[in-house]
Amino acid sequence: MAILKGAALVGQSGGPTAAINATLAGVIRGAFEAKDAITKLYGMRNGIEGFLAERTIDLTATFSNEAGALDEEKLNLLAGTPAAGLGSCRKKLPDPDADPEFFAGLIALFKKYDIRYFFYIGGNDSMDTVAKLTKYLKTTDYEMRAVGVPKTIDNDLAATDHAPGYGSAAKYIASTMQEIIRDCAVYTVPAVTVVEVMGRDAGWLTASAALPRIINGTAPDYVYLPEVNFDTDAFINDIRAALDKHPNVVIAASEGIRFADGRYVGESSQSGATDVFGHKYLGGTGKTLEGIVKDTFGCKVRSIELNLPQRCAAHLQSKTDIDESRGVGRAAVGFAVEGTSGVMATIQRADGAEYKAEFVPMEIAGIANQVRSVPREYITDAGNNVTDECLNYIKPLIQGETETAFKDGLPVHIIL
Amino acid sequence: MAILKGAALVGQSGGPTAAINATLAGVIRGAFEAKDAITKLYGMRNGIEGFLAERTIDLTATFSNEAGALDEEKLNLLAGTPAAGLGSCRKKLPDPDADPEFFAGLIALFKKYDIRYFFYIGGNDSMDTVAKLTKYLKTTDYEMRAVGVPKTIDNDLAATDHAPGYGSAAKYIASTMQEIIRDCAVYTVPAVTVVEVMGRDAGWLTASAALPRIINGTAPDYVYLPEVNFDTDAFINDIRAALDKHPNVVIAASEGIRFADGRYVGESSQSGATDVFGHKYLGGTGKTLEGIVKDTFGCKVRSIELNLPQRCAAHLQSKTDIDESRGVGRAAVGFAVEGTSGVMATIQRADGAEYKAEFVPMEIAGIANQVRSVPREYITDAGNNVTDECLNYIKPLIQGETETAFKDGLPVHIIL
Repeated sequence: MAILKGAALVGQSGGPTAAINATLAGVIRGAFEAKDAITKLYGMRNGIEGFLAERTIDLTATFSNEAGALDEEKLNLLAGTPAAGLGSCRKKLPDPDADPEFFAGLIALFKKYDIRYFFYIGGNDSMDTVAKLTKYLKTTDYEMRAVGVPKTIDNDLAATDHAPGYGSAAKYIASTMQEIIRDCAVYTVPAVTVVEVMGRDAGWLTASAALPRIINGTAPDYVYLPEVNFDTDAFINDIRAALDKHPNVVIAASEGIRFADGRYVGESSQSGATDVFGHKYLGGTGKTLEGIVKDTFGCKVRSIELNLPQRCAAHLQSKTDIDESRGVGRAAVGFAVEGTSGVMATIQRADGAEYKAEFVPMEIAGIANQVRSVPREYITDAGNNVTDECLNYIKPLIQGETETAFKDGLPVHIIL
Repeated sequence: MAILKGAALVGQSGGPTAAINATLAGVIRGAFEAKDAITKLYGMRNGIEGFLAERTIDLTATFSNEAGALDEEKLNLLAGTPAAGLGSCRKKLPDPDADPEFFAGLIALFKKYDIRYFFYIGGNDSMDTVAKLTKYLKTTDYEMRAVGVPKTIDNDLAATDHAPGYGSAAKYIASTMQEIIRDCAVYTVPAVTVVEVMGRDAGWLTASAALPRIINGTAPDYVYLPEVNFDTDAFINDIRAALDKHPNVVIAASEGIRFADGRYVGESSQSGATDVFGHKYLGGTGKTLEGIVKDTFGCKVRSIELNLPQRCAAHLQSKTDIDESRGVGRAAVGFAVEGTSGVMATIQRADGAEYKAEFVPMEIAGIANQVRSVPREYITDAGNNVTDECLNYIKPLIQGETETAFKDGLPVHIIL
């Protein structure tokens, strides 16, 4: 096959993670390694939305050292910087059949910059963008290749064994749960601590809170995932049983847990419900569960929302996750240069007792807009915890630590 | 002076920190080094409350290796473990004049175990315990020495330049603020993020959120401390000015900010419950400010409560803080063995351009139950930020990183 020569364009989209810049670093490395084909690598500022306004950055120039080679130190700093360094957006593209003019305009812009390679790092919505562009490209004679690169702390992307960013988030959540459990253990007064974990539709992040159990025996008493309907009576019975065993009860609950009727548990806190003192609950799943415990048991109770640090705590990245994030970004460029288009670069778990990841291109059309939930068999029959099998799936993804660069006491971030 | 020979007793009290076990490690080292005087080191489980129930642990045995010497590796693990390893309590002792029988009972227990040295690691309330014991000891002929060892992430203890635990909390807060600022920068839509920081009466922790400003130029737009009355109109004007400058506004606010009439800003969302010392439970400050911004500007707004990780994120300890925490614990033992009693072992900043800490014993009676606030001259005239001078005071305390021990992807903690 003749080499397709031209510029490449890379963007980041959707919610940030602690690893999405590592994937960008991988794409940059791939582009530097493919200089026969890729004449220049542009970064879109704020995703496709910024590109439509022609807001770009020359990443080839930015990451070249004085000798014109890849600046490895700068690339490492990028990989250790949390959140999308190029900026992000949440733009949903129209369907090519419904709005071909939109895509004609997009192609005109690609032509203007001689862009022949398109890499988009993101989650479900971003893969939808790649799928739509792929669909439209089939109707034109403009030769270009589009490859999606996965990213989501939620780990809910289909077709890939797991998503870059998930391992670091899981490591942060598991480590923080350990620290919270230590903190909660210091008093002898009965107390319940509710830790609210991200994950609107999939419980992978919440499951990771139980990870210390198979590593060193420390674990929250229960984890509640959105894959199982939340039942208030069963929850109260769980807490009662735990309080019977020990004074310091710690549980993890997904922000996305729902009642059988589909209402989010966190929703009830905005519906005018009041606590025993007549105060409105503050909102959120953790606060609602806090209220239930306070009303039922009258004991000390608090809720902790792990919040944004779950997705941006780059100072505690998983080395496995970062190595894979960089690797899959680099592999995506390789696939495209070799002639592949309309795919997502996925991570597959190789067969064998030892954990090993492989990067495999998968047809993009079947991926976008699916949600990969925690399978029911990974959750205990009682629905209030995950199985060891589930934790054994997660465990390899949090292994190893990256060397965070510090200067004057603080982590060093790079700003593009 | 003749050597006072006998057992020593050490306890931890009040809220946990990421460094209080490092101080315990220092006391353990000090006791091992003073074997001429200290025959055995007991740890109180759950502070003085546990000791009254004779719940103790033999720390000399626990931290001896097979050769009978100090097990350095175990001691390092202890110093890297967050929260009070011995457990804690919030017991307030009676005044010796009002209830001498209580102290007579306590001394009887000391005699039973031949305890001649008493070390209590904690904040204001713990120093109150040491002060009361000191006061009672003057009325008896039982020879023993009591030394307080400071601990508080709040940094509000009097007589010491800063408190062990503060540096690690400040490092965590400053690092996390950087990460949150990176995360918030990815979108172009106007958004306000309110980060709620611990600190009921003193704004030292909230001030640390601005620390990146003098290190690398990254900083929240404003920091609101409890030392300045909170004014809603001024706050709204601040936010408006920031939104005029850039779309991603990030502010830090102390949980303890108050209106001019003394009401806590977060009080509206609280139950009004107080702890045994009469401290009000706080926590709704971020939510209240979120509501004000939403009502006024209608833009995207969220609040993040940094919560417990501020005091238990041992995976991101400050080396300076941990070195000093260990050092001051060891020094406390040295002071007592040399004949000093009724003091708190403090940290003083040596004169000179280079930062250097010295450990100095200070009379306990004047210390307990004082609050060392952020001085007004460390806060800008507008009252919505801290000065560079304030940040230069904090900066040395977050320098350096400890080597967290990891096993199978998670930090290793020791459970006593």
